[in-house]
Amino acid sequence: MSAQSAPRTSPGNFFEDFRLGQQIRHATPRTVTVGDVALYNALFGPRFAAQSSDVFAQKIGYPRSPLDDVLVFHIVFGKTVPDISLNAVANLGYADCRFLKAVFPGSTLNATSEVIGLRENSNKKTGIVYVRSQGFDETGDTVLDYVRWVMVRKRDEAAPAPGEKVPELTKTVEAAKLGGACPKINVTAYDNVLAGSQYRFGDYKVGEKIDHVDGITVEEAEHQIATRLYQNTARIHFNQFAESKGRFGRRLVYGGHAISLARALSFNGLGNAFHVAAINGGRHVAPLFAGCTVFAWSEVLASAEVPERDDVGALRVRTIATKDRPCSDFPLKNADDYDPAVILDLDYWVLLPR
Amino acid sequence: MSAQSAPRTSPGNFFEDFRLGQQIRHATPRTVTVGDVALYNALFGPRFAAQSSDVFAQKIGYPRSPLDDVLVFHIVFGKTVPDISLNAVANLGYADCRFLKAVFPGSTLNATSEVIGLRENSNKKTGIVYVRSQGFDETGDTVLDYVRWVMVRKRDEAAPAPGEKVPELTKTVEAAKLGGACPKINVTAYDNVLAGSQYRFGDYKVGEKIDHVDGITVEEAEHQIATRLYQNTARIHFNQFAESKGRFGRRLVYGGHAISLARALSFNGLGNAFHVAAINGGRHVAPLFAGCTVFAWSEVLASAEVPERDDVGALRVRTIATKDRPCSDFPLKNADDYDPAVILDLDYWVLLPR
Amino acid sequence: MSAQSAPRTSPGNFFEDFRLGQQIRHATPRTVTVGDVALYNALFGPRFAAQSSDVFAQKIGYPRSPLDDVLVFHIVFGKTVPDISLNAVANLGYADCRFLKAVFPGSTLNATSEVIGLRENSNKKTGIVYVRSQGFDETGDTVLDYVRWVMVRKRDEAAPAPGEKVPELTKTVEAAKLGGACPKINVTAYDNVLAGSQYRFGDYKVGEKIDHVDGITVEEAEHQIATRLYQNTARIHFNQFAESKGRFGRRLVYGGHAISLARALSFNGLGNAFHVAAINGGRHVAPLFAGCTVFAWSEVLASAEVPERDDVGALRVRTIATKDRPCSDFPLKNADDYDPAVILDLDYWVLLPR
Repeated sequence: MSAQSAPRTSPGNFFEDFRLGQQIRHATPRTVTVGDVALYNALFGPRFAAQSSDVFAQKIGYPRSPLDDVLVFHIVFGKTVPDISLNAVANLGYADCRFLKAVFPGSTLNATSEVIGLRENSNKKTGIVYVRSQGFDETGDTVLDYVRWVMVRKRDEAAPAPGEKVPELTKTVEAAKLGGACPKINVTAYDNVLAGSQYRFGDYKVGEKIDHVDGITVEEAEHQIATRLYQNTARIHFNQFAESKGRFGRRLVYGGHAISLARALSFNGLGNAFHVAAINGGRHVAPLFAGCTVFAWSEVLASAEVPERDDVGALRVRTIATKDRPCSDFPLKNADDYDPAVILDLDYWVLLPR
Repeated sequence: MSAQSAPRTSPGNFFEDFRLGQQIRHATPRTVTVGDVALYNALFGPRFAAQSSDVFAQKIGYPRSPLDDVLVFHIVFGKTVPDISLNAVANLGYADCRFLKAVFPGSTLNATSEVIGLRENSNKKTGIVYVRSQGFDETGDTVLDYVRWVMVRKRDEAAPAPGEKVPELTKTVEAAKLGGACPKINVTAYDNVLAGSQYRFGDYKVGEKIDHVDGITVEEAEHQIATRLYQNTARIHFNQFAESKGRFGRRLVYGGHAISLARALSFNGLGNAFHVAAINGGRHVAPLFAGCTVFAWSEVLASAEVPERDDVGALRVRTIATKDRPCSDFPLKNADDYDPAVILDLDYWVLLPR
Repeated sequence: MSAQSAPRTSPGNFFEDFRLGQQIRHATPRTVTVGDVALYNALFGPRFAAQSSDVFAQKIGYPRSPLDDVLVFHIVFGKTVPDISLNAVANLGYADCRFLKAVFPGSTLNATSEVIGLRENSNKKTGIVYVRSQGFDETGDTVLDYVRWVMVRKRDEAAPAPGEKVPELTKTVEAAKLGGACPKINVTAYDNVLAGSQYRFGDYKVGEKIDHVDGITVEEAEHQIATRLYQNTARIHFNQFAESKGRFGRRLVYGGHAISLARALSFNGLGNAFHVAAINGGRHVAPLFAGCTVFAWSEVLASAEVPERDDVGALRVRTIATKDRPCSDFPLKNADDYDPAVILDLDYWVLLPR
C-alpha cells in the first residue's frame, strides 16, 4: 500500500455491496438536546403546543415536551445515509414508518438497517435497495421503524446483481398500530385556545381539503444548517463546488426539509394534529432549491378510531407541498403527471384529541 | 359547506373584528431554553456579562443568567401576532413596556392582550388598534407588560367602526416602576473588567451621545431564523414569493431584529447597562432589508434614582439605529424628518450598577 | 469633555499600547450550554461519537460528552479579540496550544492573556504582538493554553516601540504534555462501528496522506452566526458596509471557521481521532470568503506514545484545507509558495484509542 492511497475514508456502499438480509449498525449515536429543539424551531417555525411548551405537554399527559416527530425522523435517517444512500441517485420512497416511542431532550439515538429488498435496473448501472431502518433510544427501545428504498449506483457495471427481491410494502399503516409514542391524553386539560385551533378529531371530514395559506422561503444557509444538524452526510446538500458541475448545477435541498416545512405550515389548519403517528408513504416529486418559497395544502383521506383509545383519533392526511405556487386551488396533477410546482406528496397519520 | 372551503385556517382579525375591552388569550405557550439563548447569542452577539455567564449572574445576585430582556419581548410579541397584527399595514408604536420579572431557561411563557383603543382611519380602509399585551411565566406571574398600536386593514370597507377610543398613553415609564425584574445587585461583586466596561451609573451624563461604532450586516437566513424562533407568523418576513409582488418587492426584516441588533451594538459604550427595565416608546422609522449593515448610537436622555434601590440606577437612553450609515456624527433628523438612514428610534430605561 | 466626545467605547489596543509582561483579563465570561453544542453541530456537522453521544462518552470514560475542542478554542479566542486583535492587520500564527481539561455544557469560561513578545515592523506602522492566552473554567482550572501572534497597527507612527522581544516558541508540543483533557479511555468499550471508523491508533502510518473527500460550502449567514456565537468582535467578519470599501471588498470568514470545517471534514478518514490534544502551529494561508467550498486532506507527521497512557496514542497530523479545490492530489505548495487554493495549514496532535 502506498502512503498516498490509504483507504481510510469510506466511499459508501454501491449496489453490489448490499446483501439481502444484511444487518447494518449505523455510526454516530446522538444525544438530542433542547439545543436541537431550538434550532429546529428556528428553522421551521412549528407551533404545535405539545412540542412547544413543557407545561402544556405535562397537562395533557407527557412528562415534558417531546421532540417534534419529524426531527426524530431526520436524525435517524441521517445516520443511515453514510451506509445506505451515499451513492444514491434518487431517494424513491418511504413506507410503513411508525413512531413508536416519544423522544425527549437528553435521549440518545442510534440506528440500524436491514436490507429487505434488492433489484437491479435493466441498464445494469444502478439498482434499487430496500431497507427497513430503526431508531433506538438509550434504553434500547425502538422509537422509529420505517422502510425506504433508494436507487443506488453500481461501482462496476459488470458486477453481478447481489440479489433480487422486491419486498411487499405496507400501503397504509393500520390504525391499530398507531399511538405507541403518544401517552394517554387528558382531553379536558387540552386547551384549544393555547393550542391555537378549535378543531378536534371529530370536526374534520374525510375528503375535506385545507389550504395552509402561508409560505416559507428557503435559504441556502438554512437547509445546510438543518441537514448538518441531523449529521446527514449527503454531499449534494452542502457542496456547491461539486454540484455546480452536477445534475442541477446547484445544491439540492434535503427532501426532509420539505417535509418539515410542510408539517410546520400545516399547523394553520391542523393545529391540534399534535402528533405524527405514522407515515404511510412519501414521494419527493420534484427537487427543491434555495430561493424557492414552499406552500402546502392537505386532504383528509381517512378518519379512524385508534383501538382502545378514547382520548385521541387518527386522521390520515395527504399533504402536498409546492414551490413558488400558493395552494388555494389545491394543485396536484395535470393530466397524468404532477403539477410541476409540486415537490412533495406525503401520506401520513396524525393524532388529534377528541 | 363544500369540502374545498373548510375554514380551518385563521385569516387573523381585521379592524372590524376587534372590540373595546376585548380580552384575547394567545396561542402557543413556549418553554424557553438554553437552546434559545444560544441562538439569540449567535444571531446578535450580545456580550452583557449577566446574560452570558451564570457565574457572573450568581455573583451579582441572580439565581443564574436571565434571558436577554429583548428576547423575552420578542417571544411574547410573537404570540400576539396571529391575533393582533396578521392583517397589519404598519406597526405604529410601543409604550409603557415594563419588564416585571426575570425569565430563566426552563420557564414557559404565555401571552394575553386587551384591546384598549380603536380608531378608524378616515379612508375607512384601515383602523388603529391599541392593545395592552402581557407575558406570563408558568407560575402566572407577569413578566412583561406593554402597549402597542398597529394599523389594521378592514375586511369590508362598509363595515361600521367597532368603536372609537384613543387611549392615553404613558410617555415615559416612571423610575419608581423600574427594577421588578432585577434582583438586589451586589455592586462590590460586580467585576467591571469581566463586564467589559469601567463606566457605572454615575459616570454617564445626561445629554451625552455615544457612537456604538460597530456594524452588523443582516442576512436573509438570519432574520428568518430569528423570527421563526419567536414563532412570529407575520408572513412579510418569510415569504419571498408573495413579497416579490408586494410593497417592497422583498422580505421585510422584523422590526424587533433591529432592536436586538441595536441593543447588542450598544454594549460598546453601555457595557454595564445589564438590564433593559422598560421601553418608553419605539418607532420603526424605516424598513430594514437583508444585505444592509446596521449601526447605532445613543443619547442619555435622563438619569434617575430607582426608589428604595441603592444598588442600581436608571438611565433613560434613546438609541438610534441606522442602515448602511455609520453613526459617528449621530444622524437623526434632516430639517423636519428623519435622516433616511435611520431605521429605529428607541427610548428606554436601562439599569446599571452604582 | 464635550457631550459628543465621551470615550465610552473601546477602540481596542494599538501596538504602542502593549507592554512586555502585561497581564490582561478579558471581558465577558461565558457559560457554555447544549445550545452552543447544537449550533456548532449544525454549522459544521462534526460526527465524532464522543462529542455526539453522552452514552458513548460515558462508556469510554467521560462523565458525558465534552464540548468539541475547537469550539472551546473559539470561545476563549473570542474573548481575547477586543483587547488583542481589534486593530490587527493579520493573525500570524499559533503555537504551543494545549487542551488541558475537558469542558462540558454548564461550564463557564474566562480568559486572560500575557504579552510575551513585541517587535515593531521596519515600516513603523505596525508591530507584532505575541500573547500567551489561557482559558479557565468556573473552578479556576486552565482548560486551554496557547500562544498567538498578530500584526497590530500603531495608532501613531511616531510613537516609540513599546518593547522588543521575540519569544522562543515551542515548535511542537511534546507528547508528554498531551492528554490532560482526556480521561482514561476504556478501549474495549470503544465501539468502532458506532464511532464510524475501524482504524485505531496503531493502524495509521507516519507519512500517509488522507484525502477527506467531502466539501462544505460556506454561506455568509453561517460564518456570521458562528463567529457571533463565540462573541468574537472582529468587525471584518460582520460589517459588509465597511468591508465593501476594505482590503477584500467583502467580509472575511473568521480563520477559525476553516479550522472547524477542516476538523469536521477530517472525520472521514480520522473518525477515531476523538480528541484534539494540542495545536503545534497553524497558518491561515489565504483568506476564505462565503460562497467557497472547503475541502481538506491530512498527512500523518508522527506517531507517539503518551507517557503513562496505554489507552490512547497520539498522532501528529498536518491538515491542509483548500477552497474550491478537491484534495485527491494533496495540494500544498507550488515551487516555493502555497498552492493558491490552500487556505489553512494546521499542525496538531490528536488522540486515538489503541
